[in-house]
Amino acid sequence: MAMPKGPQAFPRAEYLRRLSTVKTEMERREMDVLVISTPSNITYLSGYTAKSGYVPQGLVISLEEEEPTFLTRRQDAPAAMHQMFIASNRVIGYPEALIGNPDMDGFDAVIDFLRDNGLGRRRLGLETKFLAGQSIEKFKRKLPAATIGDFSNGVTWIRLTKSDLELAVMRESAAIADAGILRAKEVIRAGVREADAAAEIIATLVRGANGKPGTDLSSFYLCASPRSATPHIRWSEDVFREGSQINLEFGGVRHGYISPLMRTFSVGKPADRLRRVHEGEVAGMEAALAAVKPGATCSDIAVAFNSTLKKYGFEKDSRCGYAVGIDWLEPTASLKEGDMTVLQPNMTFHLMLGNWIDENFGYVISETFRVTDTGAETFSRMPREIFVV
Amino acid sequence: MAMPKGPQAFPRAEYLRRLSTVKTEMERREMDVLVISTPSNITYLSGYTAKSGYVPQGLVISLEEEEPTFLTRRQDAPAAMHQMFIASNRVIGYPEALIGNPDMDGFDAVIDFLRDNGLGRRRLGLETKFLAGQSIEKFKRKLPAATIGDFSNGVTWIRLTKSDLELAVMRESAAIADAGILRAKEVIRAGVREADAAAEIIATLVRGANGKPGTDLSSFYLCASPRSATPHIRWSEDVFREGSQINLEFGGVRHGYISPLMRTFSVGKPADRLRRVHEGEVAGMEAALAAVKPGATCSDIAVAFNSTLKKYGFEKDSRCGYAVGIDWLEPTASLKEGDMTVLQPNMTFHLMLGNWIDENFGYVISETFRVTDTGAETFSRMPREIFVV
Repeated sequence: MAMPKGPQAFPRAEYLRRLSTVKTEMERREMDVLVISTPSNITYLSGYTAKSGYVPQGLVISLEEEEPTFLTRRQDAPAAMHQMFIASNRVIGYPEALIGNPDMDGFDAVIDFLRDNGLGRRRLGLETKFLAGQSIEKFKRKLPAATIGDFSNGVTWIRLTKSDLELAVMRESAAIADAGILRAKEVIRAGVREADAAAEIIATLVRGANGKPGTDLSSFYLCASPRSATPHIRWSEDVFREGSQINLEFGGVRHGYISPLMRTFSVGKPADRLRRVHEGEVAGMEAALAAVKPGATCSDIAVAFNSTLKKYGFEKDSRCGYAVGIDWLEPTASLKEGDMTVLQPNMTFHLMLGNWIDENFGYVISETFRVTDTGAETFSRMPREIFVV
Repeated sequence: MAMPKGPQAFPRAEYLRRLSTVKTEMERREMDVLVISTPSNITYLSGYTAKSGYVPQGLVISLEEEEPTFLTRRQDAPAAMHQMFIASNRVIGYPEALIGNPDMDGFDAVIDFLRDNGLGRRRLGLETKFLAGQSIEKFKRKLPAATIGDFSNGVTWIRLTKSDLELAVMRESAAIADAGILRAKEVIRAGVREADAAAEIIATLVRGANGKPGTDLSSFYLCASPRSATPHIRWSEDVFREGSQINLEFGGVRHGYISPLMRTFSVGKPADRLRRVHEGEVAGMEAALAAVKPGATCSDIAVAFNSTLKKYGFEKDSRCGYAVGIDWLEPTASLKEGDMTVLQPNMTFHLMLGNWIDENFGYVISETFRVTDTGAETFSRMPREIFVV
């Protein structure tokens, strides 16, 4: 008995559609073959979500083949056979001897595969922006007859516009994030240790919502006073006190797709400055969402937010958000002034309005949304309020 | 009021000792200045554990200065001031405009800092193995008078031997991992959904043990039949059934330090093959641990395991473990045949005997240990058994 195929997050036709778009882009850039090494792009093109990307692996896409071939370490091949839509014989496990080996690694196996399959002298696209310098050198050295070009973010830009099937999954993720916020309302209390509240919220994000468990955990941050000015500390060993402010940022995850969400909590009455910032930020958020429509630019959204916030006497120095999907941030379009990416239906963004204003004070709120035919659809059902507990 | 210093995981003298060892290695390699960009190495040399490493940052170490300087994006500077042992004015937040910017990124700020501080024409060490090719090119292009050398894993090799203070923290992490296994014994039952069991175990890893919470979550894998052959799938939406085998791999985390642990569970009587593999693996583990002593090599440990397992009719193709500490795996020494790294007191390893034998069957067991003056100290208190629930 071979490794059984697991339940697939998407039908085969969906993966073939995605691949077809990538192949069109390959033709446009005059490339014959791609080696995709970024885990989120591998997930997008195959359904693979197992966490083997800390060692080299490559999804090889050729214009001449309908399905790609995946090279990963031998011990991870069964997971790939189980999760990927491709035929199991297209999953190739390279020898474990390449792990922890000072002289060779998995990219040597990928290069051998290209050579053995007549792809060593073709026009080859790599995600060079995300490859170590030494790995790029290896491809060049061992494939001297190949024409190597850059395909960094080639797949990622395609991911920006989601299919209806992807959007359905992102709504499931958003429902999980909402469940996390509701759990936070129950467990954040004066006298409770930050870690204990985090444990309860995280457990909720794993259990999921509406009978659909989280399939992974995304980044999780609980930054409470005196650390409200920090965005990326997990949590501390302190206890909440009367007057504590708590900034929460996390996402639900379904099949790799994340819907991030941020909300601010207050134990007891919110401080004056917090209430004033909140008022300006919510007004800015509403202005930003009102500016969303096909044809507007990412810059327009940021201008709408920034100019509104300014009327309330505040500024935000970081961008207002970014494209979002598999593994959270897609490193493509940013909701920032000057980013002239034109919004199109079914692009998805994290409108990330966290604002770490000075060393003593930060505030968070966000929405994950898609561009509709006429405006924006936000995925969360949580009110845009300071949650007072 | 400026950002307050948080409780430090280690005293200042400990960080200065680590830095002094790094500086000795810099002198040996004839380097004047280092830019450390790997998050785990930054943690080691400063105490910083916030998760800002998805954008460029650099800890600049100069032979001429006692304390390093840290460059990170502006919004993460307060977290660095809070967590790092260095003076707050040695934390430099670079402009948020460098984030999501197609033309520049945080390494431009690091390079400007080097130039502005008279370090632009010196002998400069980079962790090139972990830097994108484009980033290395940028350092070379913008610092044409610098002599750029490779310091990849220079810090990581130093990390291999732990201080007593680090070992105490790793024992705390191990107690948390043990608590996770004990929770798994309570919640893994026929009819329970994998995700729900995972939620309970993960919550325990956050709550911690002995009054010391987990300070983060490490990787977590729950691979149950029919996926026992996969090491790196998080968990699934299935329910456990009578006869299910469950492979668990996770770690406790304290201040960045992880003690990984793997144990295999069975709902009801373990299958025959599982019991036979377990017998051979435990015998192999005991042989491996008995071979640990200062002066033995990593290879010796692997030979002891492999030759014992073979007597029981099994083989393992992946390495038997690796150096372990901050953020789990240290990419230095491997417990594999042919790795001639000589064991020395207080080196720490994950004796990782997970064995994914064929597409239908895998088994896991592991111990995190340190080399003592005479043998091995394992950190976990969990019995080396198949946990039958």
